[in-house]
Amino acid sequence: MTEPLFERVALIGIGLIGSSLALAIRHHRLARRVVCADRDPEHVRLALDLGLVDEASTDLAAMLAGADLVVLCTPVGSFGTLAGDIAPLLAPGATVSDVGSVKELVLREVAPKLPAGVHLVPAHPIAGTEHSGPKAGQVELFQGRWCILTPPEGTDPQAVSKVRALWEGVGSMVEIMEASHHDRVLAITSHLPHLIAYTIVDTAVGLEDSTQSEVIKFSASGFRDFTRIAASDPVMWRDIFLNNREAVLDILQRFTEDLTRLQRAIRRGEGDTLQELFTRTRRIRRSIIDAKQA
Amino acid sequence: MTEPLFERVALIGIGLIGSSLALAIRHHRLARRVVCADRDPEHVRLALDLGLVDEASTDLAAMLAGADLVVLCTPVGSFGTLAGDIAPLLAPGATVSDVGSVKELVLREVAPKLPAGVHLVPAHPIAGTEHSGPKAGQVELFQGRWCILTPPEGTDPQAVSKVRALWEGVGSMVEIMEASHHDRVLAITSHLPHLIAYTIVDTAVGLEDSTQSEVIKFSASGFRDFTRIAASDPVMWRDIFLNNREAVLDILQRFTEDLTRLQRAIRRGEGDTLQELFTRTRRIRRSIIDAKQA
Repeated sequence: MTEPLFERVALIGIGLIGSSLALAIRHHRLARRVVCADRDPEHVRLALDLGLVDEASTDLAAMLAGADLVVLCTPVGSFGTLAGDIAPLLAPGATVSDVGSVKELVLREVAPKLPAGVHLVPAHPIAGTEHSGPKAGQVELFQGRWCILTPPEGTDPQAVSKVRALWEGVGSMVEIMEASHHDRVLAITSHLPHLIAYTIVDTAVGLEDSTQSEVIKFSASGFRDFTRIAASDPVMWRDIFLNNREAVLDILQRFTEDLTRLQRAIRRGEGDTLQELFTRTRRIRRSIIDAKQA
Repeated sequence: MTEPLFERVALIGIGLIGSSLALAIRHHRLARRVVCADRDPEHVRLALDLGLVDEASTDLAAMLAGADLVVLCTPVGSFGTLAGDIAPLLAPGATVSDVGSVKELVLREVAPKLPAGVHLVPAHPIAGTEHSGPKAGQVELFQGRWCILTPPEGTDPQAVSKVRALWEGVGSMVEIMEASHHDRVLAITSHLPHLIAYTIVDTAVGLEDSTQSEVIKFSASGFRDFTRIAASDPVMWRDIFLNNREAVLDILQRFTEDLTRLQRAIRRGEGDTLQELFTRTRRIRRSIIDAKQA
């Protein structure tokens, strides 16, 4: 057996991504030990009962002792405080990473708090389901999916290589980009879709007549796909919108303009405009299928 | 073997729904013969080559001769003209149905043109995929899905019963409601979701920088679910929006108000508003799973 990439990987937070990462790292033997800290004792108990990790505890210091890789797997809104909490506990030469869906925030809130000699390699695995919590973990979750790394300029290349190798080890393709670019791309591919899905489901919830039960009954015609997305973790998504505000608001503005244009075409009965647009959007689906991301 | 429900079912249009219905009717032996008329010779050839029907032709009169059930399976925008075309070809006592996604239109455009003694039982199977054409047919498409019938007041109960039995025979659950109510429910469960999906994909297509290829690459984070919906048949959807204009515009207005509220919460950093809303929408998903429509 080859040497594992890391001696001790400490995951902070054992929700959907944390538990999936724990399972995958252990399955592929990428670390000698995988441990997790979670402030919820029920999560700690589940992590141990489900055999997700070698050790689990609510005691951050105990879990971080000797860790050469620490991965923040909590909602991004907690990163600032958490960085302050872990800073004194980090061993020199350790690498800090995360799995958050916004990345400029990591440079802003986490980077300044880390002691010298500790590396920061932020990561965002583009994978997930609508389920949350330690029971939602899937060993195959990252297989064939992209993981984006956004190391700040000047990061130790070896630390970047090791984090890259970890994600490739769990089956992902890795791309490196600037944090601000990441946040803009994800605003359109992920944050706007979630915002829209939450809104449309909320619009249905708000219908005044007895239509709501029928909406559920007849949801197979499009609506149900939105409800799946709108079932994602509320705190995680609150934090994403609060922390990628500018990019989300910018892309939302464009979306609203495009929607207004369609609304106008419907009101005026402009069939050609509608058909032309619906034909154009069809091509994108083909590209996604070709890119094996369907 | 029990007697089939119909002697000769003539489907007009052999796209996704027409081909699936042909396969299902024949599989469950619900008619002695299933035939189709389609104005596209390539569709006729495919219908025969794929063994979807007993007979197929571009000749409407030949296909309708002796049919006791005629089902319009073309985009709803064609219904008015088509009703005029088939009216002189219908046998007394025959039933006309359809599979269109809007139903007031059927009462408005089809009903007045049918000769006395012909029954009208409009239907809308809540089923589909993003694929189109005769090759997209699936024998199981309607299994476990709802089919809504909207017979006008005074329709012969026996004709309604037979159309109900046909849809139950292909595995669907049947609900009867008023056409106007159908159009309102579907505006939220189906038409608005499609409109939104088309718009968001179009917004991505319109991004000015090189972001578009990255959107495709990283689409697994939410966007791809929208592209699937936005790959639906352009003509079919053009016709739906043009023919359910009032209900769609009304529901779109509510959606826009709800979206503006969320936008405001993001801009002002109102985390509680976001989290509360995201929690509320989560419950709907659970209801859909409980209703076995997930």
